[in-house]
Amino acid sequence: MIQLDFKKTGGLIPAIVQDEATGEILMLAYMNPQAFEATLSTGKATYYSRSRKTLWVKGETSGNVQLVKEIRIDCDNDAILLKVEQLGRAACHTGHRSCFYKKVENGSIRITGEPLFDPKEVYNK
Amino acid sequence: MIQLDFKKTGGLIPAIVQDEATGEILMLAYMNPQAFEATLSTGKATYYSRSRKTLWVKGETSGNVQLVKEIRIDCDNDAILLKVEQLGRAACHTGHRSCFYKKVENGSIRITGEPLFDPKEVYNK
Repeated sequence: MIQLDFKKTGGLIPAIVQDEATGEILMLAYMNPQAFEATLSTGKATYYSRSRKTLWVKGETSGNVQLVKEIRIDCDNDAILLKVEQLGRAACHTGHRSCFYKKVENGSIRITGEPLFDPKEVYNK
Repeated sequence: MIQLDFKKTGGLIPAIVQDEATGEILMLAYMNPQAFEATLSTGKATYYSRSRKTLWVKGETSGNVQLVKEIRIDCDNDAILLKVEQLGRAACHTGHRSCFYKKVENGSIRITGEPLFDPKEVYNK
């Protein structure tokens, strides 16, 4: 039985999403118990969207599904690590491979990398 | 200027901590604005302890300080990625190298790896 501590974090647990092959961090999302169960049962990363207030199968719109290869839980049972195969070219809704494309340098932000797809084409169908 | 969205997450932003050399995820912690500023100014990972309700320089008790090599911010400005050099042998208070030592297998948890130090010796001085 897998006991996760959803209470400490107000019902949602952060899930770190890491590219299984390269180790790159792709994104951070949140799971409620239903999202965690759906991820376990389907093998596709499923999160809770805080903005839309609903379950969210990653890639359901963009096609950029995340196939879950490994799941780890932290010492306190209040954080999740997913190692995934990222289908499509990018995890981020901006078109970047990773959501963490803003690098802190000398007290300001530098954008790294280029978008791999045009969000307008993917999301504004 | 670096604008982080602390409001969306109730004042605390999750910080993913990754071993700069190996790509291994070491832990997930939280930062408030003061913790982020202290991390920037000192180069040592500084978090906000939700249990102790205070700033927490990682390693101040154990000696397992995290030297920050790179900081990244995500697309929505509400998650942080630290790439660090982990001093000492382990990041986790249990003595494990990584806090994510619990692996989900066939619906249950398997402990991976061995503690690298004895928490009783490190914390109960």
